[in-house]
Amino acid sequence: MAGMDDPIAMTGVLDPRSGWEARHCSLASALDVVATRTAFLLLREAFYGTTRFDDFVARAGASEPVTAARLRELVDAGLLAKEPYREPGQRTRMRYRLTEKGADLLPALIALMQWGDRWENDGGRVHVRHAGCGARVQAQLRCAEGHAVGPGELELTANA
Amino acid sequence: MAGMDDPIAMTGVLDPRSGWEARHCSLASALDVVATRTAFLLLREAFYGTTRFDDFVARAGASEPVTAARLRELVDAGLLAKEPYREPGQRTRMRYRLTEKGADLLPALIALMQWGDRWENDGGRVHVRHAGCGARVQAQLRCAEGHAVGPGELELTANA
Repeated sequence: MAGMDDPIAMTGVLDPRSGWEARHCSLASALDVVATRTAFLLLREAFYGTTRFDDFVARAGASEPVTAARLRELVDAGLLAKEPYREPGQRTRMRYRLTEKGADLLPALIALMQWGDRWENDGGRVHVRHAGCGARVQAQLRCAEGHAVGPGELELTANA
Repeated sequence: MAGMDDPIAMTGVLDPRSGWEARHCSLASALDVVATRTAFLLLREAFYGTTRFDDFVARAGASEPVTAARLRELVDAGLLAKEPYREPGQRTRMRYRLTEKGADLLPALIALMQWGDRWENDGGRVHVRHAGCGARVQAQLRCAEGHAVGPGELELTANA
């Protein structure tokens, strides 16, 4: 088992590490799309059920122009959909909702949140729970065989 | 079960959503610490086993001054430790290694990476696997009772 000095073992063409560079890295690609703190906080709000521009401004803490720019980028990247809606007796407004692509970021947001809970925020002010049983929800590393995976049990392989 | 229009149900004092704001949010706290794309990529490199300044510069793609500034911030925040080491016959150099606090970000990095694999990068160039069985590793949402949790099965509660 690798220690923290060598947390992820490289295998095959990736060994040694000095023989390759992480070009086309999927982490970098994700951060090219969700590139700012405000973008993350707007996505958080979308998960919390926020749909209207004014509510995004009030709840994510950015100015109107910044909020508008970041929402536009998230719509252009396909993470949010902007669509008209009308409540009875009111004029048509626009609302934002998560697409499947946006909703698929939930494990990443919860993983960052649980890290903040643990290391920066005294356990956190709000907790995400499983509606079925009330137990707290965490992002956990599991393999496709269902095993819980510790940080020293990982290896990196090239995609054939 | 909530749909994507209402992905996380608010309970107790958090209902309705308009009655509170996400101040002291742990997601925001995490992003105050890991605040830049370069910081994420330097942590990726630390997980890949990179320890030396020159290797961080070569592999994370930032300039020497930017790399130095981001590494210093990660050391100051306690995610990396900077320590002297000496190989036989060479002068003493400094190396960086993940602390427990830094290593605890692995689920978040893997969650972002798997999102990039799926949505931005044709499945990704490298895959993280379980060294024990070879199956691919993902960040999954699970509750403390061990249930796999879907995005419509979440609720948010205030920390008592």
